[in-house]
Amino acid sequence: MSTSAHDRIVIFDTTLRDGEQCPGASMTFEEKLEVAELLDAMGVDVIEAGFPIASVGDFESVAEIARRADRSVIAGLSRAIPADIARAGEAVKHARRPRIHTFVSTSPIHLEHQMRKTQDQVIDIITATVAQARNLVEDVEWSAMDATRTPIDYLARCVETAIKAGATTINLPDTVGYATPSEYEAMFRQVRERVLDRVSNPEAIVFSTHCHNDLGLAVANSLAGVAGGARQIECTINGLGERAGNAALEEIVMAINTRRDVLPYETGIDTTMLTRASKMVSAVTSFPVQYNKAIVGRNAFAHESGIHQDGMLKNNTTYEIMTPESVGVTKTSLVMGKHSGRAAFRDKLKALGYSLGENALNDAFTRFKDLADRKKVVYDEDIEALVDHEIAVAHDRMKLVSLSVIAGSHGPQRATMKMEVDGHVITEESAGNGPVDATFNCIQAIVPHSAKLALYQVHAVTEGTDAQAEVSVRLEDGDKAVTGRGSDPDTLVASAQAYIIALNKLQAKRNSLNAQAQSAAG
Amino acid sequence: MSTSAHDRIVIFDTTLRDGEQCPGASMTFEEKLEVAELLDAMGVDVIEAGFPIASVGDFESVAEIARRADRSVIAGLSRAIPADIARAGEAVKHARRPRIHTFVSTSPIHLEHQMRKTQDQVIDIITATVAQARNLVEDVEWSAMDATRTPIDYLARCVETAIKAGATTINLPDTVGYATPSEYEAMFRQVRERVLDRVSNPEAIVFSTHCHNDLGLAVANSLAGVAGGARQIECTINGLGERAGNAALEEIVMAINTRRDVLPYETGIDTTMLTRASKMVSAVTSFPVQYNKAIVGRNAFAHESGIHQDGMLKNNTTYEIMTPESVGVTKTSLVMGKHSGRAAFRDKLKALGYSLGENALNDAFTRFKDLADRKKVVYDEDIEALVDHEIAVAHDRMKLVSLSVIAGSHGPQRATMKMEVDGHVITEESAGNGPVDATFNCIQAIVPHSAKLALYQVHAVTEGTDAQAEVSVRLEDGDKAVTGRGSDPDTLVASAQAYIIALNKLQAKRNSLNAQAQSAAG
Repeated sequence: MSTSAHDRIVIFDTTLRDGEQCPGASMTFEEKLEVAELLDAMGVDVIEAGFPIASVGDFESVAEIARRADRSVIAGLSRAIPADIARAGEAVKHARRPRIHTFVSTSPIHLEHQMRKTQDQVIDIITATVAQARNLVEDVEWSAMDATRTPIDYLARCVETAIKAGATTINLPDTVGYATPSEYEAMFRQVRERVLDRVSNPEAIVFSTHCHNDLGLAVANSLAGVAGGARQIECTINGLGERAGNAALEEIVMAINTRRDVLPYETGIDTTMLTRASKMVSAVTSFPVQYNKAIVGRNAFAHESGIHQDGMLKNNTTYEIMTPESVGVTKTSLVMGKHSGRAAFRDKLKALGYSLGENALNDAFTRFKDLADRKKVVYDEDIEALVDHEIAVAHDRMKLVSLSVIAGSHGPQRATMKMEVDGHVITEESAGNGPVDATFNCIQAIVPHSAKLALYQVHAVTEGTDAQAEVSVRLEDGDKAVTGRGSDPDTLVASAQAYIIALNKLQAKRNSLNAQAQSAAG
Repeated sequence: MSTSAHDRIVIFDTTLRDGEQCPGASMTFEEKLEVAELLDAMGVDVIEAGFPIASVGDFESVAEIARRADRSVIAGLSRAIPADIARAGEAVKHARRPRIHTFVSTSPIHLEHQMRKTQDQVIDIITATVAQARNLVEDVEWSAMDATRTPIDYLARCVETAIKAGATTINLPDTVGYATPSEYEAMFRQVRERVLDRVSNPEAIVFSTHCHNDLGLAVANSLAGVAGGARQIECTINGLGERAGNAALEEIVMAINTRRDVLPYETGIDTTMLTRASKMVSAVTSFPVQYNKAIVGRNAFAHESGIHQDGMLKNNTTYEIMTPESVGVTKTSLVMGKHSGRAAFRDKLKALGYSLGENALNDAFTRFKDLADRKKVVYDEDIEALVDHEIAVAHDRMKLVSLSVIAGSHGPQRATMKMEVDGHVITEESAGNGPVDATFNCIQAIVPHSAKLALYQVHAVTEGTDAQAEVSVRLEDGDKAVTGRGSDPDTLVASAQAYIIALNKLQAKRNSLNAQAQSAAG
């Protein structure tokens, strides 16, 4: 499909950094690795894997993603502070293609109120920090935080400084998400005009967009930035990110693919993986994707009879067709059941994009057989739910042994639960305000804890009343938040599983923080 | 806030037409009236209330909305067919300000493959149909379906024809959702340049945008259309609509409000009602709003500590601040409990925007007291859920009397249910694959039916494990689809309620269709 007439756009995914730092979207170490692996395989050019100085957990996940990445550049974010940059360099150093992404605010508001620095002081900071980063890695990206509210003369001066200090990617973000496309395009045009004549390596410099969607304009602004000369777009799966989120990767990539006639660019993304990426990010964050979300919403390709886009290619070759298949929407075809064997199960998992180790596969197969006994037809979604759950419960201190509940309109409802905690089986009975409350009260009685239930969601994974229910439970304890997912034909069992998984994760997080505190003290 | 320097943009809401016709979003008669009432109160200039020829139900809801609307123009859609136009005229005639909106395809693809007409034939059709509509009402809008894929010369000829036949609003939709902002702006500019010199009343003509979001560009395209001279924007609450939906009303209005400096326009929308409109449309359709949806997502105003938009007004007057309050996000403040009296309850309902009749208020208050007995604190969301439910169960043949369920990991689960059907109480016991399945099997045993469960969703309405659960159940029977919602601290009771409400609605729909068939036959 690609021709040399089309400029290559660098796709920079920040789902794991800007996306993950939005309230309620935090991911575990394993979830981050899983998302990064998919992004790498999908052809994302640069994966911003995290903010290494933020925590030991962030550092470790960036480092591990750097070690594992096959093709993608792995970027670590850092403020314009020497310790940050050193830590980011340490985190990405094992990547085949490491990048340090350092940023500083350039707008008058930020300089005056947040940084309390003069414009000249910030120029000195840019020179020193970019040079430091460049001593650690070849590939340095510099961002002018709040660029869209920075006077153009000063912004150009900062950019020139960063390039001369060694940055080769220059990101000009719309941090507050209020820019319009024409403003954003003009900013890139003006900065490039003022700066590129004054540096020795203009051909090596890539300008980058980073847009937030507060006014619904993030995708349009990103493309406007490209029209103004940018050749990297920072974006996230599902548009995840702070507030109204970032520009959605899938929308940008499909806009470019579908309208090559007027957007003469190309990306390296395998678009058939977009749907799976969307589902994975939605599942690990418990952020639902709205039905009419462009590209990846369940209605995105649901056409009413009136208009047939199928006819478009025949009749109008200036538009390339966007088909469900082009973004990886697959029909549920290979139906599995109780007579399906281990090999068929393994093949099915492979087709769904999962490769499990032998032990995990055995566990998953046992659970599959158990499910197939209870449910006539096992759909792809059932299997995905089952395997994701399998991955989630890998290392658990607490396990559900059994649950029985009496519920209905003559409350109070009562639940009786057996749980295994560190090898010991404990039984409790609790009343509650509804069966879910009673179930969760049992867990509270068995494992006393201070975490608060922040989110409780039930999804029927497949159609029909005997659907396997998938339940998400988000627990918050102080500044820590984790999500657990459980799946079972019985909603209450799935709820208990999800809650217990979340508790396990919270425990794991607390241990990792304790380790961090000890290491900081030591 | 408004100044004469700002051009007035006509906001044309098509949530009840383009939104409602998307798969799975159909609304009942009462739900449509409720949405229309809110749109009218919010200051929407034109409400496209439906497609009167499509069904008796559509006709009746358009007619009733026309009778009730206070301020808004009420538009009915019609194809370029005399019977359609007559029916649309009939439906809107009781409105204070009626509009007929008639459309015909103008693109070569549609002419050749769908209409099998020549360009000249379509010109004749435009003349005849617009003139017919103009004989019925003063205010006629004409749309060039698939305008963005129509050659500009022919498009201009069509527009000129429509204006000369009496249309005063000219809509040029991006039917396939593939336009880019610069293309869309250029189309309006070119058509206006070619046509406005050639008609006698250029000052009376309003051009209109209608954008779909397939590539994530609907809002940007709408604003680009305005830059090209359009002064009406067609949009929907939450961006509801076919495929990836329409341009989102709330994003367009807030972009214009927030960036008046570069978008010198104004609308008549009371933005403080946007959040309530979003919630209402999400609730009646069961289409969730994603957390990071611009303006109305739950994270839209969730700022991390780094950047304070509060400081913006002080420091940069070119951006107006978008605050949560400006779009009607209210803090849960007035907490209600078991000691709250009837007057306080009525005040609370009023503050939440509900005005119930005396009987409905009494019923709701009884349910509130019942809930307050079971739940320490009753939040605003609990009350909203309770009242919406109250509205939903207004005229029911079937009612839940009681439910008890035994569930847990040692299946099969069993449910015992009492239901009142046409005044008779029936008791059934059923097993099932999970407690929800067992509960629904009881309903199936008591009221045998062929409807299929298409969607089952559980939302915890408020925080905490004793949250009131709100359950949505969508049933499909042939080409009919309905959604029921139930709320109760017990998820299973809420599930049963939701299912029974949906069954009642399905029954009501079937009766109305029977009436329609009889009326068509008679």
